[in-house]
Amino acid sequence: MTSKKIRTIEELGEFGLIDHLTGGFTLRQESTSTGVGDDAAVIDHGAYCQVITTDLLLEGIHFDLVYTPLKHLGYKAVVVNLSDVYAMNAAPRQLTFSMGISGKFSVEALEELYGGVKLACDRFNVDMVGGDTSASVTGLMISVTAIGTALKDELTLRSGAKNHNLVCVTGDLGAAYMGLKVLEREKQLHAGDPGFQPALVGYDYVLERFLKPEPRVDVLLAMKEAGIKPDAMIDISDGLSSELLHICKSSGCGVQVYGERIPVAEETARVAGEFQLEPLVAALHGGEDYELLFTVPLSDFDKVSAIPGVSVIGNITDQKGKALLVGNDGSAIPLQAQGWNAYTQGESK
Amino acid sequence: MTSKKIRTIEELGEFGLIDHLTGGFTLRQESTSTGVGDDAAVIDHGAYCQVITTDLLLEGIHFDLVYTPLKHLGYKAVVVNLSDVYAMNAAPRQLTFSMGISGKFSVEALEELYGGVKLACDRFNVDMVGGDTSASVTGLMISVTAIGTALKDELTLRSGAKNHNLVCVTGDLGAAYMGLKVLEREKQLHAGDPGFQPALVGYDYVLERFLKPEPRVDVLLAMKEAGIKPDAMIDISDGLSSELLHICKSSGCGVQVYGERIPVAEETARVAGEFQLEPLVAALHGGEDYELLFTVPLSDFDKVSAIPGVSVIGNITDQKGKALLVGNDGSAIPLQAQGWNAYTQGESK
Repeated sequence: MTSKKIRTIEELGEFGLIDHLTGGFTLRQESTSTGVGDDAAVIDHGAYCQVITTDLLLEGIHFDLVYTPLKHLGYKAVVVNLSDVYAMNAAPRQLTFSMGISGKFSVEALEELYGGVKLACDRFNVDMVGGDTSASVTGLMISVTAIGTALKDELTLRSGAKNHNLVCVTGDLGAAYMGLKVLEREKQLHAGDPGFQPALVGYDYVLERFLKPEPRVDVLLAMKEAGIKPDAMIDISDGLSSELLHICKSSGCGVQVYGERIPVAEETARVAGEFQLEPLVAALHGGEDYELLFTVPLSDFDKVSAIPGVSVIGNITDQKGKALLVGNDGSAIPLQAQGWNAYTQGESK
Repeated sequence: MTSKKIRTIEELGEFGLIDHLTGGFTLRQESTSTGVGDDAAVIDHGAYCQVITTDLLLEGIHFDLVYTPLKHLGYKAVVVNLSDVYAMNAAPRQLTFSMGISGKFSVEALEELYGGVKLACDRFNVDMVGGDTSASVTGLMISVTAIGTALKDELTLRSGAKNHNLVCVTGDLGAAYMGLKVLEREKQLHAGDPGFQPALVGYDYVLERFLKPEPRVDVLLAMKEAGIKPDAMIDISDGLSSELLHICKSSGCGVQVYGERIPVAEETARVAGEFQLEPLVAALHGGEDYELLFTVPLSDFDKVSAIPGVSVIGNITDQKGKALLVGNDGSAIPLQAQGWNAYTQGESK
């Protein structure tokens, strides 16, 4: 009955909408272990599992062709999917690549796009096994589905976080968002100028983080070597805050993270300053970082701290659904879910 | 070198473009049996195989929301993918459903769309295991990936046709295309009229064939019961002519089919008459029928002829790449590949 009162997508938000629409679906195939609600679905093949994930990249929402090189776009379209596979602690194996393209694209432009796809496939040892190519009257759209495998006891879901677990992130956060801000600023400064040459010198780091994200295979390998198996893991595509809340919801736990421990690169902080933005806000809500957020047992503290590129930022609590950001002065403020809300603001996120 | 001269997508066509762009990709995962080039890719799991297929449905290309009920659209988006799974002689198991939607959609409209998806999942016993939901600034787009399984010796590829095989089709052809023509005519007659009530009485069959295609599970089951295993199979999504040429290319053979044996429903012929179109042209090039085209050994003639809904329309020859349409007078004309060419004509196909 309640659902009858809900009329607009904005009221539900992205995650609410997905829950609402997929709530009525039941799983009945024996082989389906996990359906909607993790980085990837899981299919059971006995000793090993297969994970399946899919992502859309739409012109005007996820990318702007004014400043996105097609080769980078092809690479990124693959990588954002592989990132979901890695976040299940699985190895990617196959992918399908589909695109809708308008007639304005030349074959050479599409070769660039596919060049990026091939680069990612070569680099991460993934087979491109199929796809669909269609005309589009409404801009470029890309849909990728990636498939990976993991031994059953290696698979890591969002739902495995345990009380007192350490909460860790890889790399640094917020850079991709600041890269996007720089590109958007340059675009607006040169609106309508066909000879548009953006002034991007000095912004290499944040631009690369936005245009060419890299999945953190290195950290996963180092953890395996160190004998660490995360209890829960998720990739940071929508911003740290949103992903922390996903883990709390799926694992039925709470979390507290310490603001000063959240890793932000120097260049990210400098660019955030230019935009009069608190660097921590970019890290918490920026998204598109494709770093990993995971939890490990407290006893792994020494081992996990020794891995280059890993920061311990907080811990899991038994305060179900309570996600807190703890400040230097000991004050704690609740983290907000954000995710994208491009329906209303029309901004890339 | 030759590829450097090619500049426009039109010159290459759909199939040429796919060949061109995917030509440089290599397969290296042991589990990948078949990549690009069949109805679905094949992943090896030992005794059984998994097939993976994906299809895009884009507003303005594959559907027009002026006359497409959302529930039908959701159902069709699933069915066109399941049809590819069945065409591998496999049983569908899981699917992912992704969509890009503009803010103009109400939650109720999306419930309709998902209602159609759920109906198809329930009917064909498939689990919806994931997807991606995104804002879109450019109309509705849907991307579905379906996964099925088959025992290794039951899998049927496009490439298995043998000399003297009988060429068979299920159901009747050309109806979906005539349904589309009727809907387009009504739309044009009422262009700009917000109270548009199309005059569709008497067109039930062709409309249903276009709006609500059904995969031919019944025929596959009947063939299994009769002990028939097709040598080659493909689903008819782009028109009989195009699919016959796919089989010839993949199997390294030729084919001849008899015009008078190609099944066309009475209503399809009547509607084709209204549009001054030869019914056979609709059957050969219309597309969207989602019937099955398959080949069986000559010795199966009696068994296959006894199955309701199967027509034997010709035979495989050893004249590699030669696809002929034989007329009543014994004349033979070469079949043309068509596929969609919506890049230039902007018409749904």
